[in-house]
Amino acid sequence: MKGLPSLERLVIVLSRFPGVGPKSARRMVYHLLRHGKEATQELIMALEGLRDSIRHCEVCFNLAEDEKCWICADPRRDDARICVVEEPSDLMAMEKAGLFTGRYHVLGGRLSPLDGIGPDELHLAALESRLIQGSVIELIVATNPTVEGEATAHFVAQLAEPLVPRVTRLAYGMPMGGELEYLDESTLYQAMAGRRDFRQKSLNDGVGP
Amino acid sequence: MKGLPSLERLVIVLSRFPGVGPKSARRMVYHLLRHGKEATQELIMALEGLRDSIRHCEVCFNLAEDEKCWICADPRRDDARICVVEEPSDLMAMEKAGLFTGRYHVLGGRLSPLDGIGPDELHLAALESRLIQGSVIELIVATNPTVEGEATAHFVAQLAEPLVPRVTRLAYGMPMGGELEYLDESTLYQAMAGRRDFRQKSLNDGVGP
Repeated sequence: MKGLPSLERLVIVLSRFPGVGPKSARRMVYHLLRHGKEATQELIMALEGLRDSIRHCEVCFNLAEDEKCWICADPRRDDARICVVEEPSDLMAMEKAGLFTGRYHVLGGRLSPLDGIGPDELHLAALESRLIQGSVIELIVATNPTVEGEATAHFVAQLAEPLVPRVTRLAYGMPMGGELEYLDESTLYQAMAGRRDFRQKSLNDGVGP
Repeated sequence: MKGLPSLERLVIVLSRFPGVGPKSARRMVYHLLRHGKEATQELIMALEGLRDSIRHCEVCFNLAEDEKCWICADPRRDDARICVVEEPSDLMAMEKAGLFTGRYHVLGGRLSPLDGIGPDELHLAALESRLIQGSVIELIVATNPTVEGEATAHFVAQLAEPLVPRVTRLAYGMPMGGELEYLDESTLYQAMAGRRDFRQKSLNDGVGP
């Protein structure tokens, strides 16, 4: 609406969110307007809280509200295992599954030369320092199963192998609840190549609900 | 995530938007965090703009950034016709269709005794004052086609009829692009009851693209 530049500006800013188009952004603004200035004020304050409170953990680069994140600050976590992920959201997904009891290291992205993201843009030096201390016995590389995530995984593994007794990665295979018929070829290939004996012991030391 | 109360608080506030569940709210917060404090700051400023700039037009109660909204301030609009709508978003939908050239009156809701919304909660006194001035020749009631919208329409019509030569309402019938087969019975009933001769002149004085 030409007569309401402040409304239009907010619609544009909200439209930048993933999964939010101009129509739903407009619906969100109308929702705010219907609920009075208090609703807008509450959202502003929550955003200010995010802006002012969130930083990166100085050990693992997870999101944190203090110098260390809640995982690095937890004395009950296993120092001998570190799981490497690309983003804090990947860490949250792992934590939600609730089966890993070690520590994390958040790279802050993945190698992507076309976007100008090389090894120096990721938190690799900090990972190296953690591994050099010598108390880690397993590094689990949990980057995303994409081309760039794979390249990043290999880079991390190469860096870690001289420093850690064991470097592992997450298994590829069929996602639970899926149907074979609809699986893409490369996943099916990985599932077949990675097949295991029914009675094979899984590598789940230190990992479990 | 227990370790990030400021993040969780923002997720809760964003989840209150229509069509935004906890999952998409979380995705929105991660989006903000990935784009640095500048993205959060930009959203805060856009929200502050909305909070500080938007008020209600003192004539028609549309959203406005000045005393009068852009429609009431436009000398080219037809003073002889007023279209009554429930909410500013209904007005925007009408304007987007772009076929009405008169003025508006925004009620600010609909009659809903169960929610404690009676005639005094709607901008009806202001509508009456506008009609008493005597320059309006048609009042078009465009409340929503719901039970409460209907009740509101009848109330408005009753109030307006002694003051305006003609009180009309939007036609009911088949929505364009729909299929007869899937129409609900009451819409089909209205479409049949409101059937018109192929050559009947429509009541489109003062209304047109």
